[in-house]
Amino acid sequence: MAANESTHHFITLLPNTIHSLTHSIALMADHQALLSSNNPIRFGIIGCADIARKLARAMSLAPGVTLYAIGSRSIDKAEKFASLIGVSGTDHEIIKLYGSYDQVLEDPCVDAVYLPLPTSLHIQWAVKAANKKKHVLLEKPAALNVAELDQILEACRSNGVQFMDGTMWLHHPRTIKMKDLISHSNKTFGQINFIYSTSTMSVSPEFSESNIRVKPDLDGLGALGDLGWYCIGALLWAKDYQLPTTVQAQDVTTNCTGVILSFTAAFHWDISSNNTAATIHCSFFSNTSMDLTISGSNATIHTNDFIIPYQEDSASFELSCGAMFVDLHIGWNAVPEEVSVDCELPQEALMVEEFSRLVRGVVYDGVQPNCKWPEISRKTQLVLDGVKRSIDSGCKLVQL
Amino acid sequence: MAANESTHHFITLLPNTIHSLTHSIALMADHQALLSSNNPIRFGIIGCADIARKLARAMSLAPGVTLYAIGSRSIDKAEKFASLIGVSGTDHEIIKLYGSYDQVLEDPCVDAVYLPLPTSLHIQWAVKAANKKKHVLLEKPAALNVAELDQILEACRSNGVQFMDGTMWLHHPRTIKMKDLISHSNKTFGQINFIYSTSTMSVSPEFSESNIRVKPDLDGLGALGDLGWYCIGALLWAKDYQLPTTVQAQDVTTNCTGVILSFTAAFHWDISSNNTAATIHCSFFSNTSMDLTISGSNATIHTNDFIIPYQEDSASFELSCGAMFVDLHIGWNAVPEEVSVDCELPQEALMVEEFSRLVRGVVYDGVQPNCKWPEISRKTQLVLDGVKRSIDSGCKLVQL
Repeated sequence: MAANESTHHFITLLPNTIHSLTHSIALMADHQALLSSNNPIRFGIIGCADIARKLARAMSLAPGVTLYAIGSRSIDKAEKFASLIGVSGTDHEIIKLYGSYDQVLEDPCVDAVYLPLPTSLHIQWAVKAANKKKHVLLEKPAALNVAELDQILEACRSNGVQFMDGTMWLHHPRTIKMKDLISHSNKTFGQINFIYSTSTMSVSPEFSESNIRVKPDLDGLGALGDLGWYCIGALLWAKDYQLPTTVQAQDVTTNCTGVILSFTAAFHWDISSNNTAATIHCSFFSNTSMDLTISGSNATIHTNDFIIPYQEDSASFELSCGAMFVDLHIGWNAVPEEVSVDCELPQEALMVEEFSRLVRGVVYDGVQPNCKWPEISRKTQLVLDGVKRSIDSGCKLVQL
Repeated sequence: MAANESTHHFITLLPNTIHSLTHSIALMADHQALLSSNNPIRFGIIGCADIARKLARAMSLAPGVTLYAIGSRSIDKAEKFASLIGVSGTDHEIIKLYGSYDQVLEDPCVDAVYLPLPTSLHIQWAVKAANKKKHVLLEKPAALNVAELDQILEACRSNGVQFMDGTMWLHHPRTIKMKDLISHSNKTFGQINFIYSTSTMSVSPEFSESNIRVKPDLDGLGALGDLGWYCIGALLWAKDYQLPTTVQAQDVTTNCTGVILSFTAAFHWDISSNNTAATIHCSFFSNTSMDLTISGSNATIHTNDFIIPYQEDSASFELSCGAMFVDLHIGWNAVPEEVSVDCELPQEALMVEEFSRLVRGVVYDGVQPNCKWPEISRKTQLVLDGVKRSIDSGCKLVQL
């Protein structure tokens, strides 16, 4: 499959039984009417990892966005992926399929690329994409280390393209609601004293030795990158992106190639009168969990599905404010309140929408790329690097 | 107030508005009918701390138990306490009031004593009580260190009296239910990989400098003894009382006298193919919390009120088994199940009932005192001592 013409197809996606997006498209029509004066932001997906199916759906749900091209290492893989995400209904969509990543980047109609590639390939393809003036939505973890990420961010900066990593939960309205509650100005919550976060999933022994997410040449960070990215991100999010003063890893397990399969890490912020401690636990050996607990002087927030909510249409958290015991200490003054937050679009669609909003500003309004999201990625990567240094040093305390 | 006669009163408790136990007494009547062939176990309370009111009520609720005597450092205090716990209804109770602790121990009608004294006084009064052949229900933390606890346990052993510490949650039926689920033989849960537990409460600055629970000569262990006892106990309970291999304290805060006000600690069990890690966080600076999360290879348990349930009549925990994502990773296969467990008697009454059942065996049936509860106390104290050693060493890793 060498000739370009043989690796470049237009296909009309026909009905299939895997996932119907008819309803989503109908919903989208309203939104797009509002944007009629703007062209949709045209996405290319580079790499057909499983997660890309979720993003393809998000692109169909987010207003002002269209999935325009799919590139894989072979046209067969691109076709297979296209059939997996096939849509039906009256609005047939036309998507370009490419048998190489480069062809997506060469396509002048592609505004932005989503890169769900193994982490070790991020630097190569994100930098290439930026140099081709494509805006970059990069799956997490952003890079193997901050040196690599800095090359990516510099490529984006010098080419004037928007960068965002693919951390979806930050875009969920529940996240915004929780942030309002714990924000420094909210005296109800008080000072954040302790944060606890987990990201665990139970995998087979085969996975932990040979899956792409634990192969040293593909995702060499293992559980630290795949799971720890979320927990570290949650700590930073809660702490308004102040970096912790110290980090110390504990209880590290690796596979036979040295890739991290599970670990715990403790963090400390030693910032004037605003000390905070935190513990995260990430593991490929435990039942799926994604706990986030924020313990303040006056209130506590608990949620056990912070990364991927149990359900799409709403998500909740438990809020306990001013908890006291009743007389005789035989119970509490109140059961924690369950705060429920509706979500009209899935969080990944909200992420794509936000990214595309920023891209639109750059493409159509001459606005500079937004700096907030690259900075969030960079700080997350910096702390992740700190945990890695602690792990590599035999779990010594590391100053950041 | 030197003469004995002036410090020894019989009082008939009259109706007051503080807490009506009429209903409880009615419930109790049924139970006691079953025990009509046995005398009730007669308790003396030594020290009128606030917590003793809760225990006095428990003694009125637990079948086969009666509160027989109250001893304080002055007869005025004993009278005040008696009036605080006053009962109403048709069954007036007669309780002996003493103006000294010794008088309670000298009373031959007292079978058992409950000691809610500051920790530093435990060794003196628990040993004295045992030597007077009184069975000992000792408020937690059991002692300042395991050397002191060993003297108490030896006094109990050599005098043939029952020992139990006042950890109430271990007696709640929810605790039993959770234990069934996480027990080694339960393949549904799988191996316990991680345990997380907190005990926090928010106190005033005055409290943290001068309350009895943070005075170096009274409760010199501070948050480690008052709060850490529960979390350490929870870890040991989950791990079938296997001692951890290592412990390391983190993020310790003390008051101006060096008493611990907050800390985090990490634990590790390195036992053949049964590794477990754990983190606990205890603090006098945060909103009331008492989280217990147990993360197994196949399931997860969450509860946020493990020490004192939100409500008395039932308590619940969240159970997540075999959690997976639905297709496209846009949600979970199931929301965690809320498992609710009814509680006919409050956990402190169940504790008093269990303690009295054991005392009855010793007093009336010639059975040897039960060893399980003293062993639980001793192991909890051993691990607590380990955390203390780590704290005292500047948070070094300590082998147990």
